[in-house]
Amino acid sequence: MIKAYAAFTPGGALQPFEYDPGPLGDHDVEINVEYCGLCHSDLSMLNNEWGITKYPFVPGHEVAGRIGAVGKHVSKFKIGDRVGLGWHAGYCLECSTCMEGDHNLCDAAAGTIVGRHGGFADKVRAQAASVVALPDKVDSDTAGPLFCGGITVFNPMVQFDLKPTAKVGVIGIGGLGHLAVQFLHAWGCEVTAFTSSEAKRVEALELGAHQTLDSRDSNALAAAAARFDLIISTVNVKLDWTGYLNTLKARGRLHLVGAVLEPLTLSVFSLMGKQRSISSSPVGSPAVIAQMLDFAARHQIAPIVETFPLSEVNAAIARLDSGQARYRVVLKVD
Amino acid sequence: MIKAYAAFTPGGALQPFEYDPGPLGDHDVEINVEYCGLCHSDLSMLNNEWGITKYPFVPGHEVAGRIGAVGKHVSKFKIGDRVGLGWHAGYCLECSTCMEGDHNLCDAAAGTIVGRHGGFADKVRAQAASVVALPDKVDSDTAGPLFCGGITVFNPMVQFDLKPTAKVGVIGIGGLGHLAVQFLHAWGCEVTAFTSSEAKRVEALELGAHQTLDSRDSNALAAAAARFDLIISTVNVKLDWTGYLNTLKARGRLHLVGAVLEPLTLSVFSLMGKQRSISSSPVGSPAVIAQMLDFAARHQIAPIVETFPLSEVNAAIARLDSGQARYRVVLKVD
Repeated sequence: MIKAYAAFTPGGALQPFEYDPGPLGDHDVEINVEYCGLCHSDLSMLNNEWGITKYPFVPGHEVAGRIGAVGKHVSKFKIGDRVGLGWHAGYCLECSTCMEGDHNLCDAAAGTIVGRHGGFADKVRAQAASVVALPDKVDSDTAGPLFCGGITVFNPMVQFDLKPTAKVGVIGIGGLGHLAVQFLHAWGCEVTAFTSSEAKRVEALELGAHQTLDSRDSNALAAAAARFDLIISTVNVKLDWTGYLNTLKARGRLHLVGAVLEPLTLSVFSLMGKQRSISSSPVGSPAVIAQMLDFAARHQIAPIVETFPLSEVNAAIARLDSGQARYRVVLKVD
Repeated sequence: MIKAYAAFTPGGALQPFEYDPGPLGDHDVEINVEYCGLCHSDLSMLNNEWGITKYPFVPGHEVAGRIGAVGKHVSKFKIGDRVGLGWHAGYCLECSTCMEGDHNLCDAAAGTIVGRHGGFADKVRAQAASVVALPDKVDSDTAGPLFCGGITVFNPMVQFDLKPTAKVGVIGIGGLGHLAVQFLHAWGCEVTAFTSSEAKRVEALELGAHQTLDSRDSNALAAAAARFDLIISTVNVKLDWTGYLNTLKARGRLHLVGAVLEPLTLSVFSLMGKQRSISSSPVGSPAVIAQMLDFAARHQIAPIVETFPLSEVNAAIARLDSGQARYRVVLKVD
């Protein structure tokens, strides 16, 4: 039996929940969870905001732990290996998208907490292909958030061949944004954090931003015209997209990794005159997750976390929901 | 004196108009116009749709002709050289965008018909840097439309490193689209023309499309899910963008070269799940125009044109305005 925490109704408090995972699949592994990050997507799923949640619902898709069991066709891991698991717990491995290495874009990719039980538990299972080994220098207590928040902001840097000479803006200095600032700094880019909070302004500079820009100051935004090669937006609310597009240089890209529910509305001319692009992407493939972990280890990049025991998961959820968490909440299995 | 045709009021008929261009600039050339294409942008400017037209207004920005005079610092051309001139008649040549070769994105680029007199005339002037030599195998009578319609659809193929293995859709089989089909076919791509016209369907296949797709058939659009690497939209009306985005593969791009006045409205999720991009661009730099002409010469690509004498310019405008022209209207200086 796996000992987990589950919600039984939309938005309901999490309660202890045991389930029998059945026999381990031939291509699957079982991870003994040590830490699991708490992500905004866990809250969206908990509240069934996307209409795809099944109850009882076990959140948790930022897992760090050790391999506890391996299926009979798994050769890449052995018991005791330090690993992590993110948003996806399996891929078809056969479609053209998987065959091209873009597993994160596979139509049949299985979400770790979508129709499955996630990592707020002593154990979690996943297809071995979706699990990535942790380098020695990546600590388990902060590794989890790299597997969802981290890869989400790191992936576009790889996908769009970001050059270290680029000037990059980050909208939203939170769970994702504070990792984006660190990755971009280590990548060699000039990093500008868009924030309207004085406290976050100071912290963004400490994390590696070269400067900050007050996103509520329309004059500051106007003064930044044609300044950035790339803007990564981590927020999930509608912004003045045309205003931000105007801060992009020729060939610049506005890349959205926040799940904005409201439709985008923007002028074609704000794209056309300067050959700008707007795009979005979800998490990253296991191959890029491995690149990210290697890069994070070399550059000592880690999320700043607040840690709660798993038994206090409801307090942790309340803390994340308050918007006050700095910057990522991690649960320690107790 | 230069003998031109000008409109004196928004939407007014063109009338003979002479003007004194003054002394030739040191870095400029004077082109003896032989042919000049008539583009939808000429009509938009004639009608002051973009609010930037000055009257008397001389349209014409798809010029083919011969160098008639050169400024004293011009060394790249000599009198008699066959050349063309497109949307831009000059660049600052100094800004970072120009220095990086993206002259078409220069903030100070001078539009050939924006505050200047264009090519519906016996002569037209431009900065030598904006004028491009015609290869021997590019005929003057059909070269003009390559300089605006042609480069507008060819440029994104260069900018986004389009691979010959790509599957590409073209929305709108008209002045721009019928050139896009030819370029993409020669580029080695699989080409799908989106059209709802049976006559254009047949012609698109003759021009090199491998298949067509009835854009008014929502079932056909749905059946094309995740099929294209790139869609180039040449139309200037609002379409069901989310529907078209869904026909893009993972990593696919919807690129708009039509000047759609209405704002784009689309769902972030239609971009996110498959890491799709949406973008737009204007014409192309002289360097890419030169590449395009070389490519067109090698592959015998030319617009299909209807030719009118310049003295019948108002009839030509009425023909273009009717939407019946197949596919590009060219004026021959008489």
